[in-house]
Amino acid sequence: MRPLASLAQRLAVPANARAFAVLTRESINPHVLKAEYAVRGPLVLRSVEYTKRLNNGDKSLPFDKVIPCNIGNPLILKQEPIEFHRQVLALVNVPGLVDAPEAQKLFQPDAIERAKFYLKNIPGGTGAYGHSKGVDVVRAEVASFLERRDGYPADPEDIFLTDGASPAVQNSLMALIRNEHDAILAPIPQYPLYSAAITINGGTLVGYYLDEEKGWGLTVNELSRAVTEARQNGKNVRAIAVINPGNPTGQCLSPENMQEIVKFCQRENLVILADEVYQENVYAAGKKFVSFRKVLKDMGPSFNDVELISFHSISKGFTGECGRRGGYMELVNISECAKEQFYKMMSVNLCSNIEGQLVVGMMTNPPQEGDPSYPRYKEQRDTTLSSLKRRAIKLVKAFNELEGVTCNETEGAMYTFPKITLPAKAVEIAAQNAMAPDAFYCMEMLDQTGIVVVPGSGFGQKDGTWHFRSTILPPEEDINEVIEKTAAFHAAFMDKYR
Amino acid sequence: MRPLASLAQRLAVPANARAFAVLTRESINPHVLKAEYAVRGPLVLRSVEYTKRLNNGDKSLPFDKVIPCNIGNPLILKQEPIEFHRQVLALVNVPGLVDAPEAQKLFQPDAIERAKFYLKNIPGGTGAYGHSKGVDVVRAEVASFLERRDGYPADPEDIFLTDGASPAVQNSLMALIRNEHDAILAPIPQYPLYSAAITINGGTLVGYYLDEEKGWGLTVNELSRAVTEARQNGKNVRAIAVINPGNPTGQCLSPENMQEIVKFCQRENLVILADEVYQENVYAAGKKFVSFRKVLKDMGPSFNDVELISFHSISKGFTGECGRRGGYMELVNISECAKEQFYKMMSVNLCSNIEGQLVVGMMTNPPQEGDPSYPRYKEQRDTTLSSLKRRAIKLVKAFNELEGVTCNETEGAMYTFPKITLPAKAVEIAAQNAMAPDAFYCMEMLDQTGIVVVPGSGFGQKDGTWHFRSTILPPEEDINEVIEKTAAFHAAFMDKYR
Repeated sequence: MRPLASLAQRLAVPANARAFAVLTRESINPHVLKAEYAVRGPLVLRSVEYTKRLNNGDKSLPFDKVIPCNIGNPLILKQEPIEFHRQVLALVNVPGLVDAPEAQKLFQPDAIERAKFYLKNIPGGTGAYGHSKGVDVVRAEVASFLERRDGYPADPEDIFLTDGASPAVQNSLMALIRNEHDAILAPIPQYPLYSAAITINGGTLVGYYLDEEKGWGLTVNELSRAVTEARQNGKNVRAIAVINPGNPTGQCLSPENMQEIVKFCQRENLVILADEVYQENVYAAGKKFVSFRKVLKDMGPSFNDVELISFHSISKGFTGECGRRGGYMELVNISECAKEQFYKMMSVNLCSNIEGQLVVGMMTNPPQEGDPSYPRYKEQRDTTLSSLKRRAIKLVKAFNELEGVTCNETEGAMYTFPKITLPAKAVEIAAQNAMAPDAFYCMEMLDQTGIVVVPGSGFGQKDGTWHFRSTILPPEEDINEVIEKTAAFHAAFMDKYR
Repeated sequence: MRPLASLAQRLAVPANARAFAVLTRESINPHVLKAEYAVRGPLVLRSVEYTKRLNNGDKSLPFDKVIPCNIGNPLILKQEPIEFHRQVLALVNVPGLVDAPEAQKLFQPDAIERAKFYLKNIPGGTGAYGHSKGVDVVRAEVASFLERRDGYPADPEDIFLTDGASPAVQNSLMALIRNEHDAILAPIPQYPLYSAAITINGGTLVGYYLDEEKGWGLTVNELSRAVTEARQNGKNVRAIAVINPGNPTGQCLSPENMQEIVKFCQRENLVILADEVYQENVYAAGKKFVSFRKVLKDMGPSFNDVELISFHSISKGFTGECGRRGGYMELVNISECAKEQFYKMMSVNLCSNIEGQLVVGMMTNPPQEGDPSYPRYKEQRDTTLSSLKRRAIKLVKAFNELEGVTCNETEGAMYTFPKITLPAKAVEIAAQNAMAPDAFYCMEMLDQTGIVVVPGSGFGQKDGTWHFRSTILPPEEDINEVIEKTAAFHAAFMDKYR
């Protein structure tokens, strides 16, 4: 073929060229094209470029490191992984290691014991496909955890282990959305997984606004407004996504508020999608996490018809094992037929990764008081959570001191979401660059400081308001630097565009 | 709330009940409902039940173990994982382990070195989110592998690391399918990932028949027939899935055959989806795997407009790390816009699991001659591949000796796909039970022998023919037992329904 090819190469248009390509902007699935996912958008790509330049010795940038405050990715910012979890993972991966004499010196006895338990109960170990819903023993660990947490037993058959919460949310939306008339209620601001996945699945997002003036409060009045308007527009509202603690907004819902939401969902025939991945991340005095599952079950059997899917993850809390992709969803009051459909959807991908499943097991069934690993586990847990709390308070305070910036308390989760008032000139220049004003602000922040945050426009916000989301994850020794750099940038930005 | 709830409980219909549930057979996404995935269907669920009963000491079954021949899951059937890979995984998971003195006794020096390399180059290690396309250093390892394999350089930017090949195939289909008029060519028989994912995405599968009489050959005449008929039916044929080596059929395509397919795709404007996950599993004398990538590039620049997406996985070959969920896809001759869309789709899930990525790195960049781990790696590789070859030959021979059964050679992959002639009475009873005749046969086989195989109807087959798929994975010491049990069952089945 080679000589022929060389001939063709010399021709401007090969004789046998295709009429058109299939995967182009014009002919790719338009739902995919339309989806937006700001957490990994152009800002992140630019920050990756900057990181490469810095690593290659480039000295021309006005900063010497990139500080990723764009994504809840704790281990990249020096948070240490829980030692017990990692020891068990090492032990289950090397056949025979649990019995090696050297291993007794390297690993805690309870880690060895747990590894033996998993190896005994997981056919084929970490390298074999498991049950599409997840391995039995881990689902049993999750069920026990749910019972301890909420005071109500859970059925392991209702628990599906997943590669993090994101695919679980996406599968749920896939089951719910039949066409563009099907609508899902989602908060504004919201974590853009919801908007992206709703768009990809061809459905409609109906936003309900969280009330920034009232600490990002969620009211049933606002839910009613959103549902009524959507129905007037011919939409079939099928479910509501509630993120608690909130992302990007950080608020923790009260049980009373949640009861109202449950009643609303019963009245309006809505499935509750409870995104509870930040359940361990609650910092505000007097606040604590209560699951939708507990609230619903506390309300008694007359609410047994309220369909609930709740999501949890190993990526957040103090576990922070984002890269391992582990999580679960529990289906509560969901029909047997729908459960079978979820099983089938998951079986097309065979199973979620087994090590991610094991970390779900260890997160929900951690070392207990008296276990050899407990003191270190407790120390790591308490250190991380108390440090996150200090950092949240410090960042919120600092943002509130900036000109034209107000920032609600981070009651929970891993983010601050300050509101910024931008000068008219900045808004104008952003428009000239076809950017949202807050995207322009964040891009300038990255260019000047190396700090990566996500513009509020990526999450949705009340018209005419601008925000950015910053994680509270930079290590404590770097927080002052982040604050100083942000303050200096902000002051200069305001002066430049005043 | 409790007293109120107890009151409600005493009423037959709670006053505040919902009008209807959302996630029911009637109102769940019909595309999901319609999808079928036989590899994990009712047979598998029954086999799980049998396994539980046996584990609980149930002696009432006519077998003492379940033998899963339904799925290419080698490590569950005593194949050993590659030691080098597992050592590296253990080392990257425990901070500090690479430098522990005891580790020098437990792990090979090149495994320690590789672990250090990954730890140095992967920000945050295995527990942090990485780049949505996969970590740089692993994509570079894959690119080098592709260059060595095919003789043409690869760009790491065209390589996307994924949680196994399945989600990569699903993302590709999602990008391709816009509505029910969009069609994808897929082989009959085919691995049901394709039929399931095409259905879930709301598209149309257009089958092209592999020719059983000619060793499951693939002819362009048949492709033309399929495309022409589909277009006459108003379908917009967008892509062709080719599985090479074949699943469930085991055939290996010749480069000449693949050139014809490439020309056909250029002429007909089709994207090639090249499922090449069995590329290391070729057993037939004189056959070898050649990638679509190499064939396409060998054909020269006049074929630079043929869009190709190729898939590979760590689950197959001699690696067999199914439960770890690792794989990659390479986008060849795909527009920059579409590549950006793939990046966005993957970014919604943040990233594939990092350990799965690392095993992709080690699979494509294994120990080399002279490395301390090389002798053991070579031994494991050669033992597994030569044993698979022996088992394939043995099973095919045994199936051909059964009454009314013919079975093509397993040239590659991990399966046999014998054709079975079923007595009219069996066909009748199957119909009475609303089952396909081969599904009935396979269910009887499970009930009598504990052997789990998948009916041909789960893969598609020529009308009026019946098959089953059995993996070649039972360990050599068990193969005779599988053969004897199958033969005895088959003879009894034929006699019973004759």
